[in-house]
Amino acid sequence: MIHNAPNQHIPTMSDLQKNLKIALSDVFGTMLGGAPEIFDEIEFVTGLSAIVGFGGGISGFLALHSKPENACEIAGSMLGMHFSAVDDIVCDAMGEVVNMLAGSLKKYSSTNAELFKISIPTIVWGSNYSTHAPRNSEQVLVGVKSRASLFTVQLVINSDY
Amino acid sequence: MIHNAPNQHIPTMSDLQKNLKIALSDVFGTMLGGAPEIFDEIEFVTGLSAIVGFGGGISGFLALHSKPENACEIAGSMLGMHFSAVDDIVCDAMGEVVNMLAGSLKKYSSTNAELFKISIPTIVWGSNYSTHAPRNSEQVLVGVKSRASLFTVQLVINSDY
Repeated sequence: MIHNAPNQHIPTMSDLQKNLKIALSDVFGTMLGGAPEIFDEIEFVTGLSAIVGFGGGISGFLALHSKPENACEIAGSMLGMHFSAVDDIVCDAMGEVVNMLAGSLKKYSSTNAELFKISIPTIVWGSNYSTHAPRNSEQVLVGVKSRASLFTVQLVINSDY
Repeated sequence: MIHNAPNQHIPTMSDLQKNLKIALSDVFGTMLGGAPEIFDEIEFVTGLSAIVGFGGGISGFLALHSKPENACEIAGSMLGMHFSAVDDIVCDAMGEVVNMLAGSLKKYSSTNAELFKISIPTIVWGSNYSTHAPRNSEQVLVGVKSRASLFTVQLVINSDY
């Protein structure tokens, strides 16, 4: 039985950042072949955002932001297809990537008990939008380059934890 | 100690829809004064979307969609202020509303154990975007009219539960 034990170990933001980078190497390496480049100095890209929420020992959300053409490239690599524009299949593929990232982050961040429960992904896409995290939160931004595609990965955590 | 008991009661989609309407009456009634009008036939409004994910006995997300001017009206009513355009304070207020809605839905839907854990909210806003739920999910849409403001409330649940 999985439960949140009262003595659950809560990782620091720095632990989470380290674990997120390991999760990114795992997921992008396995799914897309070849280790991705991971860096801290980033340009915040948007156009398509796949977001998964989580709650439990810590609560927050994990978002994978990309340009639409990069989302198409990643979905194409995953599925062995070609996409010239974002459609439901591309959205689902990006949802699957962020879901795996959150699962991998949980695996590396849980010790004696499951650290959090994961929601299903929401995918937002369009030519004009921005995303906003609550005031009482803190975040880590990581840039990922996989093949020619660039992503911004945003981990936001409730700072009251 | 809170845990997901193996014999946890999982509500049906119809139960969840009923509980969502009770939660809407509670939250909008308490925060904004006066019972809101709740209806099933809706026009899907966008412009600002406050989204909260949840996971556990069921996983999914709850989204509150509105036009920017209606988000400003609600934030203004809550805080006793006037907003002519969406800013960080309006975004935070809408995040707070969807967070309370999710908490209320959980309260009405949990029986012998806490049904799910709630993430922190993400707020998306802009003049051109759409949101997409995963393929293997089902959803309920409810329209809410509170004073002169119209909202679309979207509850999406993983259909594999």
